[in-house]
Amino acid sequence: MTARDTASPTAGRPAPAFYDEVDTPALVLDKAKLTRNIRTMADFVAGGPAQLRPHAKTHKCVEIARLQLDAGAVGITCAKVGEAEALADGGIADILIANEIVGPLKLARLVELAKRCTITVAVDDAGNVRQLSKAAVAAGVILRCYVEVNVGMDRCGVEPGAPALALVRQVVAADGLAFCGLQAYEGHLQNLMPFEERRARTEIDMRKALAAKDFIEAAGLRVDQISGCGTGTHTITGRLLWMTELQCGSYATMDAQYAAVGGADYENALTVLLTVISRPRPGRAIVDGGLKSITAEFGDPTVLVEGATWFDFSEEHGEIRLEGSAEELRVGDKIELIPRHGCTTVNLYDRYHVVEDGVLTDVWRVAARGRSQ
Amino acid sequence: MTARDTASPTAGRPAPAFYDEVDTPALVLDKAKLTRNIRTMADFVAGGPAQLRPHAKTHKCVEIARLQLDAGAVGITCAKVGEAEALADGGIADILIANEIVGPLKLARLVELAKRCTITVAVDDAGNVRQLSKAAVAAGVILRCYVEVNVGMDRCGVEPGAPALALVRQVVAADGLAFCGLQAYEGHLQNLMPFEERRARTEIDMRKALAAKDFIEAAGLRVDQISGCGTGTHTITGRLLWMTELQCGSYATMDAQYAAVGGADYENALTVLLTVISRPRPGRAIVDGGLKSITAEFGDPTVLVEGATWFDFSEEHGEIRLEGSAEELRVGDKIELIPRHGCTTVNLYDRYHVVEDGVLTDVWRVAARGRSQ
Repeated sequence: MTARDTASPTAGRPAPAFYDEVDTPALVLDKAKLTRNIRTMADFVAGGPAQLRPHAKTHKCVEIARLQLDAGAVGITCAKVGEAEALADGGIADILIANEIVGPLKLARLVELAKRCTITVAVDDAGNVRQLSKAAVAAGVILRCYVEVNVGMDRCGVEPGAPALALVRQVVAADGLAFCGLQAYEGHLQNLMPFEERRARTEIDMRKALAAKDFIEAAGLRVDQISGCGTGTHTITGRLLWMTELQCGSYATMDAQYAAVGGADYENALTVLLTVISRPRPGRAIVDGGLKSITAEFGDPTVLVEGATWFDFSEEHGEIRLEGSAEELRVGDKIELIPRHGCTTVNLYDRYHVVEDGVLTDVWRVAARGRSQ
Repeated sequence: MTARDTASPTAGRPAPAFYDEVDTPALVLDKAKLTRNIRTMADFVAGGPAQLRPHAKTHKCVEIARLQLDAGAVGITCAKVGEAEALADGGIADILIANEIVGPLKLARLVELAKRCTITVAVDDAGNVRQLSKAAVAAGVILRCYVEVNVGMDRCGVEPGAPALALVRQVVAADGLAFCGLQAYEGHLQNLMPFEERRARTEIDMRKALAAKDFIEAAGLRVDQISGCGTGTHTITGRLLWMTELQCGSYATMDAQYAAVGGADYENALTVLLTVISRPRPGRAIVDGGLKSITAEFGDPTVLVEGATWFDFSEEHGEIRLEGSAEELRVGDKIELIPRHGCTTVNLYDRYHVVEDGVLTDVWRVAARGRSQ
């Protein structure tokens, strides 16, 4: 086994031109697939009743957020103040941080951010609401608030009914805060299989959001928004008549996990490019990316070489099993893989290599990479 | 349940002063523990026969590398060209990249790096050796090479005996390359339990490195170095008379995994600081860090609050089970956790918050964060 002088055909197929230009490990984004995914979701959402506010926690990229807004999204969702800052720095004007924002250091940044763009946050705690109000008043800003209700994920959120109403009343009465509706995220159902069970459970659980709204409105308070939904449930939740806003994110880039549980309308636009660095024996190739290049929590990545399957993660290496024509892989050959979990894999990289028809055409920053604060 | 105005006592204990100064999620490094760990390993290595070349793939930090050199280390080990560049930028002069470096883009960077510091790489492939030689000659540099031998990890490396000798002969004959010895890493044994089995297997497998050396020297070629070893085997491998260089890395910061499999001499200097952002019901706290703040591949982090145990990872959240006095945790309280796997967790952050006696005294860059190329 000897190394080739340049990146070269993988298992008999000619390698795309960008294989020679891009060093590894590298994040690769197929722009045509990305664009089609964004269009497909925009077309779906055009069928109503809700609007799209796509989640940027997966792609963490201003350029992708802009494409989503250009296709009709009403704003962007993210998870962290730091992500929102990165998006605002890129000119995104309307951002939902779909999370409870807690602590004086974060509130100081949050109200600064609210001076330069429209900010909505989730709340589920009376003390936190008091502190948000105090910080907003001191800064002279209005923070839009969604009261988060627990629809069965059992993570954050107050229970629908009296607890939700009590918190809504507090937000409505608080200076500096604008009550805008409810957040109801069915995160526990995104991957549920079979799909028909996902459908049934989603319709049942998301009805709790409607019940919460009805209970609050019976008390004379208006609930303008119900915001939630993910890529895995969007064909279900996205057609529920009481939903006003969908937070789906993974659909734009996709990953092997969502592909496995039924994202048939969306293409895997995101890959990781690796190099074979050792062929220690027949049937095995070692590549230059492991846990620091592709995350493992959802399972193994899909190797896009016929006859090649991921075998094991080390920290800096991947072990790949080779059969048939994949045995032709040589030291120096590059291969692409679809990560099983896009959100956490993207977070390991500083940039996307944007390719069109196999040619590198752009480099986009993962602007919110590592913005966990 | 109401939020506190500032970070505050956790389950009855007064919070360290830095809890108020450091936003979350954050990487925290206890400098006294770090310093003691570096001293403990230096004392161990002083007992011979090998020298220490600590691996920086865990800490990725120039300041820590300097402390290790100040304590007697002969140089630094790392996994990637990009890590070596970051270390060289920080003034580290002698770096082993304990890995096969493959492909024209990387070789171009490698020989540039060799113009400003002493660089050693691992090799296990004849074609790669030819390309390294060509690149070194073209750049007018000497690349030091360790021929990697497989001692049972079955990842990279040639087999001891004739395959190793053939590759050594090629390196010796190649212009621009200096054959300096063998790399023999027993990565498959680092976590093996019980410890007595780890000891027995290590002594058997590392004897393959000695056999490889004897075979090569019987052919008239000198093997100056045998480099390998990790934190989990250092008390075994580090006393084998044929070892000349130890690559241990995790001992400096430690993590819950090494603590669990027998790193009794070393202290957990590394923690992650998180904030409780929701107390949705008794017995449960939600914190502001999940898979993007603490890696999960080795298992759950250790929560440093009595009665609190990690329950589940989401992407941006952690769920913590509370019992007894831990039920006093409130929204806004901060808690520390020991990550189960330090190497990949550190790679999620841009900086260490260095604390001494509970006070924030410095901020160190994770200079090689994300340097997977």
